[in-house]
Amino acid sequence: MAETYETLNLVKDGSVLIVTINNTRSKVNLFRQQTAVELNILITSLQNDTSTKVVIFKSGEPDPTAIDAAAFNGRVFQAMSNLPQPVIAMIDGPARGAGNEFLVACDMRFASKGARFSNFEGTLGLHPGSGGAAWMPLHIGRGRAMEFLLSGEDIDAETAERYGYVNKAFETSEEMHEYVMKLAKRIALFPLNGLASIKKTVTTLIQPSAELMASEAVEWNRLLAEPEQAGLVGEFIKRSENLTSVDFELHVPDEVVKLYGK
Amino acid sequence: MAETYETLNLVKDGSVLIVTINNTRSKVNLFRQQTAVELNILITSLQNDTSTKVVIFKSGEPDPTAIDAAAFNGRVFQAMSNLPQPVIAMIDGPARGAGNEFLVACDMRFASKGARFSNFEGTLGLHPGSGGAAWMPLHIGRGRAMEFLLSGEDIDAETAERYGYVNKAFETSEEMHEYVMKLAKRIALFPLNGLASIKKTVTTLIQPSAELMASEAVEWNRLLAEPEQAGLVGEFIKRSENLTSVDFELHVPDEVVKLYGK
Amino acid sequence: MAETYETLNLVKDGSVLIVTINNTRSKVNLFRQQTAVELNILITSLQNDTSTKVVIFKSGEPDPTAIDAAAFNGRVFQAMSNLPQPVIAMIDGPARGAGNEFLVACDMRFASKGARFSNFEGTLGLHPGSGGAAWMPLHIGRGRAMEFLLSGEDIDAETAERYGYVNKAFETSEEMHEYVMKLAKRIALFPLNGLASIKKTVTTLIQPSAELMASEAVEWNRLLAEPEQAGLVGEFIKRSENLTSVDFELHVPDEVVKLYGK
Repeated sequence: MAETYETLNLVKDGSVLIVTINNTRSKVNLFRQQTAVELNILITSLQNDTSTKVVIFKSGEPDPTAIDAAAFNGRVFQAMSNLPQPVIAMIDGPARGAGNEFLVACDMRFASKGARFSNFEGTLGLHPGSGGAAWMPLHIGRGRAMEFLLSGEDIDAETAERYGYVNKAFETSEEMHEYVMKLAKRIALFPLNGLASIKKTVTTLIQPSAELMASEAVEWNRLLAEPEQAGLVGEFIKRSENLTSVDFELHVPDEVVKLYGK
Repeated sequence: MAETYETLNLVKDGSVLIVTINNTRSKVNLFRQQTAVELNILITSLQNDTSTKVVIFKSGEPDPTAIDAAAFNGRVFQAMSNLPQPVIAMIDGPARGAGNEFLVACDMRFASKGARFSNFEGTLGLHPGSGGAAWMPLHIGRGRAMEFLLSGEDIDAETAERYGYVNKAFETSEEMHEYVMKLAKRIALFPLNGLASIKKTVTTLIQPSAELMASEAVEWNRLLAEPEQAGLVGEFIKRSENLTSVDFELHVPDEVVKLYGK
Repeated sequence: MAETYETLNLVKDGSVLIVTINNTRSKVNLFRQQTAVELNILITSLQNDTSTKVVIFKSGEPDPTAIDAAAFNGRVFQAMSNLPQPVIAMIDGPARGAGNEFLVACDMRFASKGARFSNFEGTLGLHPGSGGAAWMPLHIGRGRAMEFLLSGEDIDAETAERYGYVNKAFETSEEMHEYVMKLAKRIALFPLNGLASIKKTVTTLIQPSAELMASEAVEWNRLLAEPEQAGLVGEFIKRSENLTSVDFELHVPDEVVKLYGK
């Protein structure tokens, strides 16, 4: 199974599947096309995999942003939120753009001190496109989602816990790993059909509709075709050295302001 | 009126009705059939009782869990959330399973230090069945509801306040009683038709649908019929000494793990 | 443009429009008919004003309550929440009744230490009428909205932040102004069509329906026609010296109890 994947490392601990997202071809842009394609294969394989009762995602490197394939990513993330298995994310570093849109669709999020979250698409005149705008208000409420999405500023682990975006924030990555592994192994004891039944009820209550997810991607594409936005995105790609500059990626919230000469 | 009830003690303080749930035949399982039946009678009588403007529930004993009559309980709790009168719950001890499903449908919850909340049905491969899964995400959000419902772990009063599940947590039961009685007596000054009109608007916005409540009970019954779950529930009932062991009930989150040989 | 307005002062700072609500004819009742009428004119003019990218509202005086024109106010506030521009409110003093119903429909709220929020209509047997009951549960959840709306008590800035009603609470008005102006100027850098697209998705997810807003006004009018409520409101108006007593307005939560001889 593992040989199918180039950017995902899979380890099985009992019925807990631990997936490390590790884009070996780049220090950045973990959610470029290849990762999304592999994630789609993994999610499809999990749909009938009764030997896996909990899925944990973590990242091998800081996981910055991507400008890519909004509709496809949105469908993959939506399929993940519909899996029978609970999906838990552990976040140690910055997760921006599509990186955060992957996280919004996970069932639980846990963060250590270095975590940062943002959807900064609005700073380029774009719509998040793959669920950032459709999920964040459901997680943190209307007022804070407006600030988060319209300013494109980061929120840190402590703020994310206070807003209810992450279940719990931890001082260290080790504490987080210990807590999450204990939680996952506990949940993995219980019958999967019961877990899936509960997850389905929760998802029925709180999940953006497929229509709204689709309209996000339409908005992304519509705005990307605007001349002003095309110029901003072109300049963004150039300054980020074609999305390979780690330094640029780690300071996206400040870098985007410079696009406007500030 | 009071003689109708075996497990509910009713005291009227002006137009505030204080209901103590007190299952005199058992130290545990306050929400077995008899309490639910009596609660249904009480709620029906309140629907046109204009002399009662606020209802407060408290428990005479720690109020543990029950394995019982999912659909009936769900309908009774839903009828309670549709009463014209505001319904306030004070919680001093553990409220698990159906005990917590009663609380989710109350209009406000207040907790003192000893309070504990859980829906641990998932640990037995079951669905909460009477509104636990349909209400908790509306109160505490998707991520935290997933952890709460899938792990079956307790949350305490302070965590419940932080999550917004209880309006306020108190150090002592006395402080809670003082705050809640003052609040109830203030509300009881105001015209009932105004209170009912406001409560109806809030309920229109945030209440699981009757269909979702019904599907919870269907899921409970479907999963209970599975051989694995039947075995787990049988063992659970045996180890809890037919649901009479106070010690077992007070440690349900740890006891359920032992069913899996851990 | 500014000469159109008697109760609104407009200042433009780049593409940020700063609106100070300043009812020069009264120390109180900022949301009486004249302000709502002028707000309606302003909102209509903003709908196609691409030179304005962010709107900030603040109040020149403490902004107390009003008993007025529920349906009209509700429609104006709803139109404001549908504007393409983000609308930010800064609150330094008490905002009650219609004053708070204006705030619920803003996209973000920030408060300094002196801020107080309430919808006390229920204390007079009325329904808030212009969105208070339809928005507050979406901002602070069912349990806390029930307490807020049914008790008519104030919540302060710190509590409002903890409940997620304001994005952030500040010790001083100066700190708040600095934070909000920086935020507004940052957002105003970005293309308006992108901001509007994101705001629309968030609003699709979290906004009371036009039907529920309309039913609030119907309930307000229905209850106002009840003899008991008519008497309470008449006495309220008398004791507030026809809504001109600043001292009365600043202590509304205590004053209303006295209407019941307490």
